Amino acid sequence: MRKKLHKKVFKALIEGRKFQEIRDMFNYYNMVDLALMVEDCSLDQVLMLFKILKREISAEMFTYLSYTKQEELINAFTSLEIKGMLENLYSDDIVDFLEELPSNLVKKILQSATEDQRSEINLLLSYPEDSAGYMMTTDFVELKLSDTVKRAIARIKTQGKVAETISNCYIVNENRTLVGSIRLREILFADEDEMISEIMDTDVISVVTSDDREEVANVFKKYDFSVLPVVNDEKKLIGIITADDIIDVLLEETTEDIQKIAAIIPMEGSYTETNILEMAKSRVSWLIILMVSATFTGLIIQGYEQTLTLIPALAASMPMIMSTAGNAGSQSSIMVIRGISVDNMSIKDFWLVIWKELKIGLVIGLVLFVVNVLRLMIFTPEVGLTTDLVISTTVFITILMANITGGLLPLIALIFKQDPAAMASPLITTIVDALALIVYFRLAMYFLSI
Amino acid sequence: MRKKLHKKVFKALIEGRKFQEIRDMFNYYNMVDLALMVEDCSLDQVLMLFKILKREISAEMFTYLSYTKQEELINAFTSLEIKGMLENLYSDDIVDFLEELPSNLVKKILQSATEDQRSEINLLLSYPEDSAGYMMTTDFVELKLSDTVKRAIARIKTQGKVAETISNCYIVNENRTLVGSIRLREILFADEDEMISEIMDTDVISVVTSDDREEVANVFKKYDFSVLPVVNDEKKLIGIITADDIIDVLLEETTEDIQKIAAIIPMEGSYTETNILEMAKSRVSWLIILMVSATFTGLIIQGYEQTLTLIPALAASMPMIMSTAGNAGSQSSIMVIRGISVDNMSIKDFWLVIWKELKIGLVIGLVLFVVNVLRLMIFTPEVGLTTDLVISTTVFITILMANITGGLLPLIALIFKQDPAAMASPLITTIVDALALIVYFRLAMYFLSI
Repeated sequence: MRKKLHKKVFKALIEGRKFQEIRDMFNYYNMVDLALMVEDCSLDQVLMLFKILKREISAEMFTYLSYTKQEELINAFTSLEIKGMLENLYSDDIVDFLEELPSNLVKKILQSATEDQRSEINLLLSYPEDSAGYMMTTDFVELKLSDTVKRAIARIKTQGKVAETISNCYIVNENRTLVGSIRLREILFADEDEMISEIMDTDVISVVTSDDREEVANVFKKYDFSVLPVVNDEKKLIGIITADDIIDVLLEETTEDIQKIAAIIPMEGSYTETNILEMAKSRVSWLIILMVSATFTGLIIQGYEQTLTLIPALAASMPMIMSTAGNAGSQSSIMVIRGISVDNMSIKDFWLVIWKELKIGLVIGLVLFVVNVLRLMIFTPEVGLTTDLVISTTVFITILMANITGGLLPLIALIFKQDPAAMASPLITTIVDALALIVYFRLAMYFLSI
Repeated sequence: MRKKLHKKVFKALIEGRKFQEIRDMFNYYNMVDLALMVEDCSLDQVLMLFKILKREISAEMFTYLSYTKQEELINAFTSLEIKGMLENLYSDDIVDFLEELPSNLVKKILQSATEDQRSEINLLLSYPEDSAGYMMTTDFVELKLSDTVKRAIARIKTQGKVAETISNCYIVNENRTLVGSIRLREILFADEDEMISEIMDTDVISVVTSDDREEVANVFKKYDFSVLPVVNDEKKLIGIITADDIIDVLLEETTEDIQKIAAIIPMEGSYTETNILEMAKSRVSWLIILMVSATFTGLIIQGYEQTLTLIPALAASMPMIMSTAGNAGSQSSIMVIRGISVDNMSIKDFWLVIWKELKIGLVIGLVLFVVNVLRLMIFTPEVGLTTDLVISTTVFITILMANITGGLLPLIALIFKQDPAAMASPLITTIVDALALIVYFRLAMYFLSI
């Protein structure tokens, strides 16, 4: 069974410079767990590890370290050490940490890279940061249209040593145009003399280098693939993307969506790592916009100042009405925002949303009406029943309005080609607050006969 | 290159009953795209497809159809047809649609299943719905500790035909205890006579059948795996889970998180498919809780009724102060909620959060103070500067309080073993609204000398 990796044992071996035991440990345990412990070692200790471990193992370890640790190491490495490490890394991993390094260190690395690696790295770095080209790796197995199964297996044995995955292989014609794909198992189960062109799948789904990573993630979601080939504009095969990279993309995209919902301008980096000014910047602009737009809600209240002075009891219910409006509105808007991003909802669902939110609003509104009448009778028995009914009727109408506005706003954002999450969520509260207050004061004036 | 599948061509072939062309089409195109078109065919047409297509192809098609279509088909199938289809499906796919069928049809299917399949299906159905046991497939490649590479390849060739993936194989000892894992490529690159036990990886990371699917997703995220073995409580290997299933889990979990943030009780099913009552139910309880808790905000306002009557201008700024408080509070809480679920933030970060939110609050508060003074001077020049300063100081203090409360509430939820997203997001507005109003009226009474 699996043995647990203990921090104390790890430290003791490193500090005691028990080279053989350290090598055994790195052969045995998963690198993700080991790297977490290496993270706490001193620079000298990590450099010692790079000296005593096999190059492919230390190179793998390097990819799991934090950017700060990686930078320290590159700084300390000789160009020979860098060369040795680069030989054992996939090109997409190299680009991953290059991106975070200061430019003098990037230069140091590119000088130690081989001619081939340098052009691969430059190719990857030339794509926009969120594109398929940037994410892909150029280490994959490429078969030729004229290969037999036997020839293909030979190719896999050579290319497979450096490829990131061999479970899917891709077939190109004499122009390097992508013409087919095949799974390793199909090759293994086939006859040695069969032609690859006869057993390959010719309906290859691929992405283009310039595709946005969100589009790439959508293709993975739709087809449940584990690997996708990447082609350039001339349909030539130039890389692959694997599903595990997509899991990271999905997480980042989700964080972005959630931040937008909370009126935060999306930013990368974890809470603990990002600095104060950057965080303040990402939050302050929406706060200003919303604060200024609350001016209009204020103007509405000012317009009914006289009503408020005559019936001071009305003021006490304002927060409840506004918060109920805001809550109901964001519930509806979030259901539709999620529907747009996951279930392909679009402007065609305009009437469906209106109809559905109207019906849901009727049910919820009725329940809240009853609960609110009871609440008022219990907490403020001194206020008359007419006032209770005015307040509760306002809640009922507010729910209907908030539901429909909340449901439609993300669709309207789509019409104006805006991001539904970024536009709808922050604005919805301001809009339904204003609507709710107008209804409230109108009803009060009418029924409390002012 | 890839040819596009056209709806018109598809329909013409189906309606014209061009059997050979239909078979060619199903051999050529990706099933995800084909199934979308089959969805729009009549029941008779789909039954015709099941008659003319190869069984493994029609079985794959079945898994991509909607639950309603699947139910119609099972209803129409003879038990022989069901038997033929079951033989070509993975057990986890069978369980997937069984779950959605009415019980009389489940019975019909179980009767047509072989003894082996029936016990596999019953095993999978016996696990809780969100567990690893429920998600896993029992179709995988299992090698023995005593196998040579040659023997292993032979096993892969037999078991591999029905296994969901062969890129990773798992090794068990004589008690069927999981003792190692190996990638197919390592087997292919090894000598025929080598022992599997010598080249396998003994630090196998696995999940237990009872693990929640969110934990499983976290293991995939942490280690970037494409397959994970599933063991029972006695460490015996009983299934595998593949990365593409995790993409779906992540999407569902994200939807749940986002719903919680919007004060919706998480529910499955898309916006367009879920019925009115279910949707109303998932939304109404938080609306009631928040409405009733807004009573306390109301009581605060009531307590300062006299102040409001004396300076009516104060009422106009209440919505702005409350919405700013709510927005700032949810910004902070969402940053921390996301930090908990993605970056392992926990109670240990208590002081870090206070310190960080305090500093962010100072920056944002200062900016908003200045903007607000300007806003008031422009929009309500008739109100005196002292009042402007009172309102703007309230905004400044509110931001500080909202940031710290918003940041800490998710951590406090953790202490009480509550879900941070479900607890913190809905409550934060009510709490900071109340705090903000108290500060507002206190400052007003003090500086406007009432």
